[in-house]
Amino acid sequence: MANPTAAFLVIGDEILSGRTHDKNIGFLAERLTEAAIDLKEVRVVDDDHNNIVRAVRELSKTWNHLFTSGGIGPTHDDITADAVAAAFGVSIDIRDDARALLETHTKRSGIELNDARLRMARIPDRAALIDNPVSIAPGFTISNVHVMAGVPAIFQAMVGSVLPGLVGGAPIHSRTLRIDLPEGEIAEPLGKVAQLHSKVSIGSYPFILKGKFGANVVFRCSDQVAMNLAFSDLSQIFPKAFEP
Amino acid sequence: MANPTAAFLVIGDEILSGRTHDKNIGFLAERLTEAAIDLKEVRVVDDDHNNIVRAVRELSKTWNHLFTSGGIGPTHDDITADAVAAAFGVSIDIRDDARALLETHTKRSGIELNDARLRMARIPDRAALIDNPVSIAPGFTISNVHVMAGVPAIFQAMVGSVLPGLVGGAPIHSRTLRIDLPEGEIAEPLGKVAQLHSKVSIGSYPFILKGKFGANVVFRCSDQVAMNLAFSDLSQIFPKAFEP
Repeated sequence: MANPTAAFLVIGDEILSGRTHDKNIGFLAERLTEAAIDLKEVRVVDDDHNNIVRAVRELSKTWNHLFTSGGIGPTHDDITADAVAAAFGVSIDIRDDARALLETHTKRSGIELNDARLRMARIPDRAALIDNPVSIAPGFTISNVHVMAGVPAIFQAMVGSVLPGLVGGAPIHSRTLRIDLPEGEIAEPLGKVAQLHSKVSIGSYPFILKGKFGANVVFRCSDQVAMNLAFSDLSQIFPKAFEP
Repeated sequence: MANPTAAFLVIGDEILSGRTHDKNIGFLAERLTEAAIDLKEVRVVDDDHNNIVRAVRELSKTWNHLFTSGGIGPTHDDITADAVAAAFGVSIDIRDDARALLETHTKRSGIELNDARLRMARIPDRAALIDNPVSIAPGFTISNVHVMAGVPAIFQAMVGSVLPGLVGGAPIHSRTLRIDLPEGEIAEPLGKVAQLHSKVSIGSYPFILKGKFGANVVFRCSDQVAMNLAFSDLSQIFPKAFEP
């Protein structure tokens, strides 16, 4: 059976302007791979209501899960929750369960629960809250969409809250063979090995290290024996290659 | 007049599996901002012919420019050039100008121009070559699509070859005000400043530093005077804020 699929929607002008370099794509990609959920597409869009609505609709229809990051804070440019509600045609308002979380937290911390902070209790109808152990203001899951904060520490904590509840597929086994030769020297034998072991997904990822070309060849397969056979076939062609 | 717009399509299983953390999005975002071209969308897709074709069609129709990275090397999983040709319905084969570049380079370096390396001379009809000063095998531009390598050193060199030929818009001026307070304390006055200076794009980007919350508020506008007025209005409300 094929693994469940997922997409990740990063929301924020700051990524597109280059001001902030994204740290969440790589993190989520690694966690999903561990959970045997195949990340199939990532999109980054700006803080524009219509663009967010369109992307949420498309991606949540196409893939089993959609994760989003960014735009759920207290400021005027935090418009993700409203856009997700619009994408599903449900209403959104300050919800008692989210407000209660913020009330407890602000009381304990001696800070004011002002109108701006209350914005973070705006949750679409029918959505389930996502626990935020870092700064309390929750994310939420509606249908197959998991809406999370963009600040990496909070995003990571929310991913930790969501992932254990999702069902993954068969774990994927992988091994990497590093070959310190230009890809042009590797490509032909590699192509033959890939053809012979068509069940194994084999990718070649070139690099430049100290001015020399090389490639990491990654073998991935849910069948570990099949993966090892392909790995060993290529290893024998390149005796100087090694597992990094 | 509005700035020209752009999208960036990152092609590669290795980004989606988390094996490689992307370094090109942040780089291209910064260069485009400098060139006054607005990056409006980023997508990451896997090494799948149909997914690449669909993304190239959609993004090249929607935005003024499309940049792509990845999948133009010599190995069996390098399928970008063929997918881009298919997206435009043009034929693709080994082209004499690209082959000549590779021939000169391999002869000079004493390496063999084998079939795998010749794959890198497959260029769609009508495309113009993009110079690759790092490893010679060229990228190409067809219509409004600029197809480049994924290895960061080569990607960066190719961006350097392409950008000077594109026409940008009015340069955007920007200033950042760092406020060492939680966004919940900033949001209300910030909202009022944003409403008052609606011409200026104002974004709030929260962070956690040594366990304390803060936010960088970024003011962006092609009109420098308008930007400075908005900046100064917010500065007066938060006298401890500073330009980082």
